[in-house]
Amino acid sequence: MLGRADELAELSEEPERLTRRFGTPALERAAGLVAGWMEDAGLTVRRDGVGNVIGRTKGAAPPFVLGSHLDTVPNAGRYDGPLGIVAALAVVERLTSGGRLPPLPLEVVAFADEEGTRFGTAYLGSAAYTGAFEREWLGLLDEDGITLADAIVASGGDPEAAVGDAAPKLAGYLEVHIEQGPVLEREGLAVGIVSAIAGQTRVRVVVRGEAGHAGTVPMAARRDALAAAAAVVLAVERVGRSTEGLVATVGAMSLSPNVGNVVPGEARMVLDIRHADDAVRALAADAIRVEVEQIASARGVDASWTVRYDTPAVGLTPDLRRRLEGAIEAAGHPARSLVSGAGHDAVVVSRLCPTAMLFVRCAGGISHDPRESVDEADVAVALEVVERFVRGLA
Amino acid sequence: MLGRADELAELSEEPERLTRRFGTPALERAAGLVAGWMEDAGLTVRRDGVGNVIGRTKGAAPPFVLGSHLDTVPNAGRYDGPLGIVAALAVVERLTSGGRLPPLPLEVVAFADEEGTRFGTAYLGSAAYTGAFEREWLGLLDEDGITLADAIVASGGDPEAAVGDAAPKLAGYLEVHIEQGPVLEREGLAVGIVSAIAGQTRVRVVVRGEAGHAGTVPMAARRDALAAAAAVVLAVERVGRSTEGLVATVGAMSLSPNVGNVVPGEARMVLDIRHADDAVRALAADAIRVEVEQIASARGVDASWTVRYDTPAVGLTPDLRRRLEGAIEAAGHPARSLVSGAGHDAVVVSRLCPTAMLFVRCAGGISHDPRESVDEADVAVALEVVERFVRGLA
Repeated sequence: MLGRADELAELSEEPERLTRRFGTPALERAAGLVAGWMEDAGLTVRRDGVGNVIGRTKGAAPPFVLGSHLDTVPNAGRYDGPLGIVAALAVVERLTSGGRLPPLPLEVVAFADEEGTRFGTAYLGSAAYTGAFEREWLGLLDEDGITLADAIVASGGDPEAAVGDAAPKLAGYLEVHIEQGPVLEREGLAVGIVSAIAGQTRVRVVVRGEAGHAGTVPMAARRDALAAAAAVVLAVERVGRSTEGLVATVGAMSLSPNVGNVVPGEARMVLDIRHADDAVRALAADAIRVEVEQIASARGVDASWTVRYDTPAVGLTPDLRRRLEGAIEAAGHPARSLVSGAGHDAVVVSRLCPTAMLFVRCAGGISHDPRESVDEADVAVALEVVERFVRGLA
Repeated sequence: MLGRADELAELSEEPERLTRRFGTPALERAAGLVAGWMEDAGLTVRRDGVGNVIGRTKGAAPPFVLGSHLDTVPNAGRYDGPLGIVAALAVVERLTSGGRLPPLPLEVVAFADEEGTRFGTAYLGSAAYTGAFEREWLGLLDEDGITLADAIVASGGDPEAAVGDAAPKLAGYLEVHIEQGPVLEREGLAVGIVSAIAGQTRVRVVVRGEAGHAGTVPMAARRDALAAAAAVVLAVERVGRSTEGLVATVGAMSLSPNVGNVVPGEARMVLDIRHADDAVRALAADAIRVEVEQIASARGVDASWTVRYDTPAVGLTPDLRRRLEGAIEAAGHPARSLVSGAGHDAVVVSRLCPTAMLFVRCAGGISHDPRESVDEADVAVALEVVERFVRGLA
């Protein structure tokens, strides 16, 4: 089954590495490959306005949906997204083997954009699928100045249909995804149930001090923007460590000037704060903000604090989580729940219908990297769990 | 007299800002302007192999030399370098006004390269002038792949002559330069005597941790290269503050990746450590190195420590310093000595003859910046001091 993930990994914008962004020929080839697998599995296949690939079994009732996303970040691994698609297909194939009808109408979806790499807005695929695609997004520009509308047209889609789609009636949604973290590996578990997708605060902090000659400005006369930023980085880490389940990161920093013999005059940082409990996250952001102000004041520098986004946590549907627990235990494994620190299509779909996620252990917690790796045996456990879960829904 | 610095500032490689690097048409125009002033002052003018502009009064004895450099950093101010040239010219004009002979043979020199901006090696001008230009430098490449040899030829110089010049016999050297620091301004002084030019240690520190998803890798499982680098930045600052006269700076830092939602896997830094006493500087570098090792060990990251250069301090000639003291006091000002944290042509010339430097107060200690500024009255004090100093040498 992982052979399909390998086949998809061959379809890239770049010769030496896997990059498959929304609206590119590489994504179209991948969509065609997935559509072919769906047809081979006896599904009725359609493409919607934004380019999602949707395959449905027979049956008039609102379907239960299985799927994930087909696009990737630049220099990606082969499982973040595609694993959920090929797992969904494999489960449907099992449930319909020998021409049987599945226990309930099923739909498999391969979302055309989740990473948001090209247009800077994540979840374009699941937004269109759930009738939440906003018309104003059509004007977004990629790095080359191409509008999202033109990118949709160029890949055979229909911007008006993407905007106009009404919210469909769905029985529920289950997404299989690699964990992208080390928890399952550390605990020796093949799979885990996602209890919630963490809320996220993204803040831009700019520290402005005073540039000066590194040889001639005495230490006591300095307003070193990097030294102040370093104190902020350690404060962010300290706050992140203070509370179970909290993560707080400075992932990006750039300096002006950025020269060996000049005291930095400005440091720009991006802070990322996540927790499953929005109140905890808000408290952490406040604590960091207070520390930033104290550091700036003590060091005589200016520090700006600009919240770029602030996304609430999403709790996944308790009933479906309990059903996943049952399926995992029936398959002979311990049912461990964990919070997803990363966002997923499930965030968007959960606004429309009961939603669950099953994480699969990945090597070293590594994702968004060619070293992304899953174990075939763990994927087999996931398939058994999803099959039991779907049978249990009937 | 500062009008000449303004005239020179008009000669730039770039329309909106002052950038005048070695071997550029802008530098050649500036050299021509200075040569014209020298001729108007009755000096015998020559250009040497590397393009230094040298003007000498009559007299066969080894000359006493006054001067500084004509090249600038990108986006420079108008005084770092040119002030010493126009001050030298003004003093010579005073001493030879009315067709008089100066009290001793004088030479004014405008060095063609001190900043080293284009070829990454500072002091090309004073090295050639003192017979210390190394043949291997001729193969150095600028950003456009042009060799230093070709750049010398293109600006009318002669690479072989630059290499072949023997060390001249000089009576001594005095350089007037802006302080590039805040000490004189803070103490309300127009000028100061440079006691020594600080030694400098430049170190490249690379911290390697592990990149990871900012949302999914728990704080306890991280090996965050930026957090470790932040601890290093604060350690460098702490050591710098621990000893009078010491400066220790992290001026440059870059991260990989450098993305808001990824824990940084690598941080590259440039450290700069300076003090007038080489032993103090070596102790400080050792102390920082120990801290870097402790931080790396405590955080489970790797840290490399590569000394890029290690330049000893240069003590300026005691006899000339005493004479400057006398001249400053005779002009009615307090004689304050201070260490230069920045390097100067005097470093190179001091290997050949007695050498002194006179600093002029600059606004806010700012240099290498268009806001570089000196007070006309302070420059008048400097001219009086240099004139008294030269008369005293006779």
